[in-house]
Amino acid sequence: MKLTVVKIGGNIIDNDDALADFLREFAKIEGKKILVHGGGKVATDIGRKLGVEPSYVDGRRITDKETLGIVTMVYGGLVNKNIVASLQSLGCNAIGLTGADGNILPAIKRPVKHIDYGFVGDITSDDIHTEVLNIFLRMGLIPVLAPLTHDVKGNILNTNADTIAQEVAKALAKDWNVELIYCFEKKGVLLDAANENSVIARITTEDFAELREKEVVSAGMIPKLENAFVAINGGVKKVIIGHAKELSDLCVAKAGTSII
Amino acid sequence: MKLTVVKIGGNIIDNDDALADFLREFAKIEGKKILVHGGGKVATDIGRKLGVEPSYVDGRRITDKETLGIVTMVYGGLVNKNIVASLQSLGCNAIGLTGADGNILPAIKRPVKHIDYGFVGDITSDDIHTEVLNIFLRMGLIPVLAPLTHDVKGNILNTNADTIAQEVAKALAKDWNVELIYCFEKKGVLLDAANENSVIARITTEDFAELREKEVVSAGMIPKLENAFVAINGGVKKVIIGHAKELSDLCVAKAGTSII
Repeated sequence: MKLTVVKIGGNIIDNDDALADFLREFAKIEGKKILVHGGGKVATDIGRKLGVEPSYVDGRRITDKETLGIVTMVYGGLVNKNIVASLQSLGCNAIGLTGADGNILPAIKRPVKHIDYGFVGDITSDDIHTEVLNIFLRMGLIPVLAPLTHDVKGNILNTNADTIAQEVAKALAKDWNVELIYCFEKKGVLLDAANENSVIARITTEDFAELREKEVVSAGMIPKLENAFVAINGGVKKVIIGHAKELSDLCVAKAGTSII
Repeated sequence: MKLTVVKIGGNIIDNDDALADFLREFAKIEGKKILVHGGGKVATDIGRKLGVEPSYVDGRRITDKETLGIVTMVYGGLVNKNIVASLQSLGCNAIGLTGADGNILPAIKRPVKHIDYGFVGDITSDDIHTEVLNIFLRMGLIPVLAPLTHDVKGNILNTNADTIAQEVAKALAKDWNVELIYCFEKKGVLLDAANENSVIARITTEDFAELREKEVVSAGMIPKLENAFVAINGGVKKVIIGHAKELSDLCVAKAGTSII
């Protein structure tokens, strides 16, 4: 049975109208589905007002104790619950979850090597408690996952939403035909970064090797594509990368870049 | 089968040590259980820092749009998710929920009569989606309910935690032998408000009529007792009112006031 996992980023969350449009399209997706959302600037804005400046070490964003409190309340509360309430009004029986809820996403606090990232959690698909997610999906619930996990020692941890989407998709690929859709602010993987209409419709593993060798794909897309192939190699049937505005077309591979 | 519904208020949530002690005792309760938590001063403190002063009309607290955002993030995010993470570390498979999640607590935005309370939701046990809570309980999950509901039109609503505890207890009384425990900052219903040790061990409907007539019970306790009897008359087996510090004794009716 098909399961669609959709990830949206901060650029949509920060724009009320874009988010409302996106959720209307998400609500129309048939079959089982999961939404994974990122953070957005709102956490930084609220943090600033509370006197918590974003913290960096060697140019890398750090989640200190104060930042953790802010992302817990903004991602896990404000953003997540407003998305859930909106989806409910659209007839989607959404349930907002962090990785601590039902212990679905136990994580390892990132070990300190060169940099102490603070309260950041790393997850792997093997550790995900899919049995809980599976029951929810079979009940007809639509999980809405905030970018938060936990260390099973009492601490919430900040975790990248792309990673959550990818690992959840891989973990559930054992039980479902999973399609993973990454929505971002471009129409897909572009042949020419300056031309929004140069979307590459389809990329296979061989294509990717070639595109990378010829340096056709922009540097920023490389990690996204690498993640996509990790998902594909982990059993996910298809990964689609495209613009949030085109979600309905992305679902039927009429838009965006399909990675297969 | 027995189900224990425990409500804790803001005075415990505002005190990290008291909350940690309480959760350790809560984790030890055997059988099925639900925790309902209130708000606490932290929402007011964070609101103030964000420039949102508590809003009152005719002396009644109002939930305006700004306050709603703050309670959504603080109650639904910060407080709820930290409780869930703590319970997970204690071996309790907690799941944090607002009334929007799984549409468990659909509410009516309070109609404007003399006062417009703003984004405040009223619930009744008949509207509660117990089938979702029942599946969670049977799965071994421990619902942790934030004092938030929704209007099924896309809005989160602020709802009194005592009311949520009472209505959820009543709704689930159809399927379980429900005991409802209200934890607050007194040892129980006191005969003499000035004497912490004058706890009335047991109050029946007849006792309550007599206590009220003789004005033995302090005015502040009357609504709590009235709510307790509403629960009892709605099918709840027992209501126990007492101090959060004595939770384990409250569970076996060795402390607090039992209302039967």
